[in-house]
Amino acid sequence: MSKRKLIRDAVHGDIEMGPLEVELMDTPEFQRLRGIRQLGTAYLVFPSAVHTRFEHSLGTSWMAHRILQSIRRNQNVSTEDETLIRVAALLHDITHIPFGHTLEDERRVLPRHDKDEERVDYFLRQSAVGRILKREGIQDAVIAAINGKDSYASDIVGGAISADLLDYLRRDTYFCGLSQNYDARIFESFIIENGRLVMNLEKQGRVRQDALSELVNLLRIRYTLSERVYYHHTKVSSGAMISKAVELALREGMTVEELRTLGDETLIWNLKELYVRNSIVAHLLKRLESRQLYRACYVLSTEIGEKRRTDIVSRFHHDLDAREAAESSIARASGIQPHEIIIYCPSFGMQLSEAEVPVRSDRGEIQPLSAGNNEEIRILKEKHKELWKFYVLIDRDVWDRGDRIKSATAAYIGTE
Amino acid sequence: MSKRKLIRDAVHGDIEMGPLEVELMDTPEFQRLRGIRQLGTAYLVFPSAVHTRFEHSLGTSWMAHRILQSIRRNQNVSTEDETLIRVAALLHDITHIPFGHTLEDERRVLPRHDKDEERVDYFLRQSAVGRILKREGIQDAVIAAINGKDSYASDIVGGAISADLLDYLRRDTYFCGLSQNYDARIFESFIIENGRLVMNLEKQGRVRQDALSELVNLLRIRYTLSERVYYHHTKVSSGAMISKAVELALREGMTVEELRTLGDETLIWNLKELYVRNSIVAHLLKRLESRQLYRACYVLSTEIGEKRRTDIVSRFHHDLDAREAAESSIARASGIQPHEIIIYCPSFGMQLSEAEVPVRSDRGEIQPLSAGNNEEIRILKEKHKELWKFYVLIDRDVWDRGDRIKSATAAYIGTE
Amino acid sequence: MSKRKLIRDAVHGDIEMGPLEVELMDTPEFQRLRGIRQLGTAYLVFPSAVHTRFEHSLGTSWMAHRILQSIRRNQNVSTEDETLIRVAALLHDITHIPFGHTLEDERRVLPRHDKDEERVDYFLRQSAVGRILKREGIQDAVIAAINGKDSYASDIVGGAISADLLDYLRRDTYFCGLSQNYDARIFESFIIENGRLVMNLEKQGRVRQDALSELVNLLRIRYTLSERVYYHHTKVSSGAMISKAVELALREGMTVEELRTLGDETLIWNLKELYVRNSIVAHLLKRLESRQLYRACYVLSTEIGEKRRTDIVSRFHHDLDAREAAESSIARASGIQPHEIIIYCPSFGMQLSEAEVPVRSDRGEIQPLSAGNNEEIRILKEKHKELWKFYVLIDRDVWDRGDRIKSATAAYIGTE
Amino acid sequence: MSKRKLIRDAVHGDIEMGPLEVELMDTPEFQRLRGIRQLGTAYLVFPSAVHTRFEHSLGTSWMAHRILQSIRRNQNVSTEDETLIRVAALLHDITHIPFGHTLEDERRVLPRHDKDEERVDYFLRQSAVGRILKREGIQDAVIAAINGKDSYASDIVGGAISADLLDYLRRDTYFCGLSQNYDARIFESFIIENGRLVMNLEKQGRVRQDALSELVNLLRIRYTLSERVYYHHTKVSSGAMISKAVELALREGMTVEELRTLGDETLIWNLKELYVRNSIVAHLLKRLESRQLYRACYVLSTEIGEKRRTDIVSRFHHDLDAREAAESSIARASGIQPHEIIIYCPSFGMQLSEAEVPVRSDRGEIQPLSAGNNEEIRILKEKHKELWKFYVLIDRDVWDRGDRIKSATAAYIGTE
Repeated sequence: MSKRKLIRDAVHGDIEMGPLEVELMDTPEFQRLRGIRQLGTAYLVFPSAVHTRFEHSLGTSWMAHRILQSIRRNQNVSTEDETLIRVAALLHDITHIPFGHTLEDERRVLPRHDKDEERVDYFLRQSAVGRILKREGIQDAVIAAINGKDSYASDIVGGAISADLLDYLRRDTYFCGLSQNYDARIFESFIIENGRLVMNLEKQGRVRQDALSELVNLLRIRYTLSERVYYHHTKVSSGAMISKAVELALREGMTVEELRTLGDETLIWNLKELYVRNSIVAHLLKRLESRQLYRACYVLSTEIGEKRRTDIVSRFHHDLDAREAAESSIARASGIQPHEIIIYCPSFGMQLSEAEVPVRSDRGEIQPLSAGNNEEIRILKEKHKELWKFYVLIDRDVWDRGDRIKSATAAYIGTE
Repeated sequence: MSKRKLIRDAVHGDIEMGPLEVELMDTPEFQRLRGIRQLGTAYLVFPSAVHTRFEHSLGTSWMAHRILQSIRRNQNVSTEDETLIRVAALLHDITHIPFGHTLEDERRVLPRHDKDEERVDYFLRQSAVGRILKREGIQDAVIAAINGKDSYASDIVGGAISADLLDYLRRDTYFCGLSQNYDARIFESFIIENGRLVMNLEKQGRVRQDALSELVNLLRIRYTLSERVYYHHTKVSSGAMISKAVELALREGMTVEELRTLGDETLIWNLKELYVRNSIVAHLLKRLESRQLYRACYVLSTEIGEKRRTDIVSRFHHDLDAREAAESSIARASGIQPHEIIIYCPSFGMQLSEAEVPVRSDRGEIQPLSAGNNEEIRILKEKHKELWKFYVLIDRDVWDRGDRIKSATAAYIGTE
Repeated sequence: MSKRKLIRDAVHGDIEMGPLEVELMDTPEFQRLRGIRQLGTAYLVFPSAVHTRFEHSLGTSWMAHRILQSIRRNQNVSTEDETLIRVAALLHDITHIPFGHTLEDERRVLPRHDKDEERVDYFLRQSAVGRILKREGIQDAVIAAINGKDSYASDIVGGAISADLLDYLRRDTYFCGLSQNYDARIFESFIIENGRLVMNLEKQGRVRQDALSELVNLLRIRYTLSERVYYHHTKVSSGAMISKAVELALREGMTVEELRTLGDETLIWNLKELYVRNSIVAHLLKRLESRQLYRACYVLSTEIGEKRRTDIVSRFHHDLDAREAAESSIARASGIQPHEIIIYCPSFGMQLSEAEVPVRSDRGEIQPLSAGNNEEIRILKEKHKELWKFYVLIDRDVWDRGDRIKSATAAYIGTE
Repeated sequence: MSKRKLIRDAVHGDIEMGPLEVELMDTPEFQRLRGIRQLGTAYLVFPSAVHTRFEHSLGTSWMAHRILQSIRRNQNVSTEDETLIRVAALLHDITHIPFGHTLEDERRVLPRHDKDEERVDYFLRQSAVGRILKREGIQDAVIAAINGKDSYASDIVGGAISADLLDYLRRDTYFCGLSQNYDARIFESFIIENGRLVMNLEKQGRVRQDALSELVNLLRIRYTLSERVYYHHTKVSSGAMISKAVELALREGMTVEELRTLGDETLIWNLKELYVRNSIVAHLLKRLESRQLYRACYVLSTEIGEKRRTDIVSRFHHDLDAREAAESSIARASGIQPHEIIIYCPSFGMQLSEAEVPVRSDRGEIQPLSAGNNEEIRILKEKHKELWKFYVLIDRDVWDRGDRIKSATAAYIGTE
């Protein structure tokens, strides 16, 4: 009954969707993505960055189509494979929860959305989405394309240079109002070799310098977004505040299952309605609702050296209790309340994995882009690593005690 | 301490805000606008149209600045006036509630946000925003500029061709992905005459044809947005469903005061959490969450003639009880449940008021644009009026009873 | 050997060309189009409007591809037909001479480029281009597609809504810096019916209002370009000056054949180098080179009524001698030199032929768009006709004698 | 009488010009820039890159205004200084001749336009432009701002990061259809210190990382344009062919003075009309007119090491006779005609001088950007140097003798 549908997207113009995709989009699980912003709290810095995982998912499916269209100039791709890949691209973020990157990657409150088997099971096997996929006989194949490795399908969906990346680079810059953009010529480079997606940089035995430049440019836009948006200190601070509130609410009775049904705004609302008996939760939400964010009074960067960084990450990143112990101790030592301080310690997850995209070079051999002797790639990788920062964030009301808090922190974590 | 701030907006680029504006933006009342989408449920048709009244408010303040900057080439404007106007522009939507246009203009569940004295009082006098305005001694002047008439300040904020319009035409097209746009040359036309904002179309005793064309173009974009977005049948249907749910919840105990504190998502959440004991509310929300919208099975347009239209609007637009009586009666007559039918009857509020902008013409006289003998304006006004439609919307499950419902409706409202 | 080539165009991005097209592009006749600006002297008003018929021809071939790509979703088109149509689109302007519209349409110094059999013969049969077409066995078919009628091939190349139009609307606005643009959704409307290209406005028995709106929008952009660019008084005046110089040079020995080998700049250069012995030519070129253009001191518009307009056009449009006699007589009567005055009398060629595009309407019948009862189309057609203007242009040095020249003109052409 | 004029530019939108600028623009010398394309023969690769030095000059004046507008937020600039700087920006390319970069920088047929005192004298003192500047009493000041050093006026006009650069980066990408662009935020960084233009990278004692990133981004766009456009092998080859033809024509009687009055198209025309008695000129023009360009059969890059490169440049870059001797000798040795070979040897002029822009850093000290320890700048500088290439270009007819020509070349210049 339903046929192909043209959907007008702000970034890509008309996106064409087949009947199966439309059916999947109209499930409650997928519609729920409309409530989850793509960039978490980045809108506190870039007010128009309110785009959601819903439209990003549509765009990812479209970018998968564009990649396949380009590959087809020289290689065959079956209609079944295209359907499978477009569906997997459409669903690649279905397991997301609100403020996912913060709660999963930065604060480790939960496992990563695509590593969390229970969630994958819930969203891709048990739900309405799961039933549709089963009926079509593509359930396992779609899950493999989303979470698996070692196939060109999974490479297109979420490999180093993927449909996911090609959508969000354009979308995030468009909605943030940044002028960076990549050139559509990049699509010309995709080929399939030995069953994997590869960027072909070779032409008549030489490296296509313009294709390589464009690839470097892509990584640079990725880096720039990290620098200006993804790790912006305001996003970090607000994310840490929300995360802390969630952590506390989880102790007060909120369940992980609940998070699967909430969006950004409804999560905040639930915290506010149900968990304000916890005075810290109450305080954090009050600050958030008037954009009175905690501020960094103590910062460590990669300048402390890899050894110390490893030590700090292993002490604080995974361990909520350790962070709380530190917060209490430093608070006590500097005469402030424990809820007026938050320790933020991200993982090392800043390797710019895009640089590991397999490329086909002048002599036809295939290797990761970063394995080539390209200085620009090397520097981008380094600079990206250097975005790692350890913060001690404090409430504005105690800003005048900054010096004491600094000393107490230094003493506690042993930086002096 | 705080100084001017540059804020990057997707539509206008860098927006410059003074310290007073930043302080107003950081109040809970203003931050709350981040939860209210500019176009209500239009995202169900244009998935990237998720922009909110928050960034629109910033943009409106910026457009006010652009208008004043242009006026200043030939006329003086005091710094105090600029501050007042920019603040009023920033706050012009502060009284908005979620799905405001639907609840206020289309369904009359509440009075219009800027006609609702209680709400104006609440948001502009009692709240944190109110306190700041009072401290600055500009409270009455700002309220007058937002709701008043007869001053160039109120013209710039919300007159026929206003900062409000100049922001939302660009913003709505940008986020919907439509190609229409107006030319920045329009700003050159603004002048102040006898204390009012006027579009000057005269140069050396002749009509500036290009300025007139551009003005017509502006109205046309306004019309196009009405046709394709604001009155899109999917937006109408989903809006009617939400509105019906809200109407029922208000009977079940939800208060108008609550609506002031909610955003789009949290309103839906509240309906779902607190009012699903009402089975109709429950049913409507279930449909909405899987985008199974009610469909029009019976439509009346302006072709029925003005007399009949007036009759129908006076019977159904203002009167929730009359609509419910009709829904029950038609449902009974066609063998469906009352909650499977919604009657949607908008007001005549479709006059394209932009056409009433005062213009200065070849002999220097000032009159409304529509008073000139311009056929294009006349047609745009007519076409805009013709967007009025009366719908009987029904649940998809009873789509096969469409013919019976049609007859029953015709019999009930007397169209045969 | 040569294969498909990707060419980066500012307007459309990458344009893909096949080997035959590349071979045709690399002929001297086609390369010559690089010297002929698309908009003649419009750059005197819009300085960046220096784009040429060369890139427009590439873009037209690409738009033909886009139309065919869209048609192919529902109908078959053979590869041979696509090649033929793309080649014809590429070559549709090959017979152009510098300032063609002025010399052909406005001043009738020469027959129109596509009506001039000798020129068609020269460029499409005798030249390198002709030889390639002959070798491929498509010479007659290409000529028929360019100049013929009654086939969907000729419709795509140069019909009412054609590849030609779809390229130049975007290109002219892009290079002039105007904000108007059409939406790519228009391509969805093309179908082939009874061997002709038709815009399909029907869906499920109803008129697709959005498709109709977009079509009207396309005509409006066409109108706007006429109003602001094609008939801008500065373009008219400079065009008339060049045309007058060419007319005089043709009497002094310049040949029509020469014009086939010249570009805009080299034509001016030739006039300057070879024909300045004619003092009027010399004077005109001196004025042009310092942008001291003749100005209108006497203007007639359509307000004079159709009868008088017909009379004036029949007296002055086709007849260079009649114009010169008038110029001499008016000059004498008002005490100026004959070379200080130019009479400019365009034809009625302003019918907005785009409005005659065949459309398929709600009941499936096919008729010209203008035959429908659409008021907007009617007004656009009327407004377009009203762009007709008869000018008496005079040198700036005699501007102070304007009143005498006006009276003398009125007396001569009998307007009083 | 004449007042400020708004001119619509494709790149910047409305550009505002004062009466003095309009008067200067309407001189024959300035209008002549309409015939000189900004990018020489780049249109043979990017067909829409036909923009000229005329609109670039307007844009440069506008960028100067934008820089001054931004500086004025914190520092005073007199109206006289603004006028002077805008006029100098407008006129900064007035001394240009057709294919200037090729004839001056790459082939050294003439001295650089801004180092050629005779030409400066001719265009800025003797001509209509010169007379206007003298009348206004700003002749020396304007010449100093264009050619001089050591003032913020000359820095704005043509310093390392200048109005010139800010215009052409946007313009060249716009007309070539490349997606690179810089962010308008860059204007915020300009300050005047000790009478010089400086980019301020400091804020509250720290380096503004985003400002530094944007500056690096600007240099990168500059580099990308060099890589893809300015040194594209097709541009090099066609430029060398034209240059060779000009060199030969200069011996046959063409004068340097003539070049001052010609544009791109009229120079080619003159070569063709007047100098085809020289059979090599005739051959080169025949090739050019059907885009049958010479091809590189032998290429040296920076891989040969600095010493050898220095040697080769000193032998071939400045010395037309040495190049001809080489061409003859290699031709003889490989059995081809001398006119079938062109040696192309650019200078070292590839230092990416933009990297030497003075920046104000964290401790307030001012130094060239490249003096900082920025790896990205270092790499950009290196990569830019590596764009240097020595070519032996040969006619397509002798392509099959490529191997013999290679050996003969290697033997002649001693690379074996």
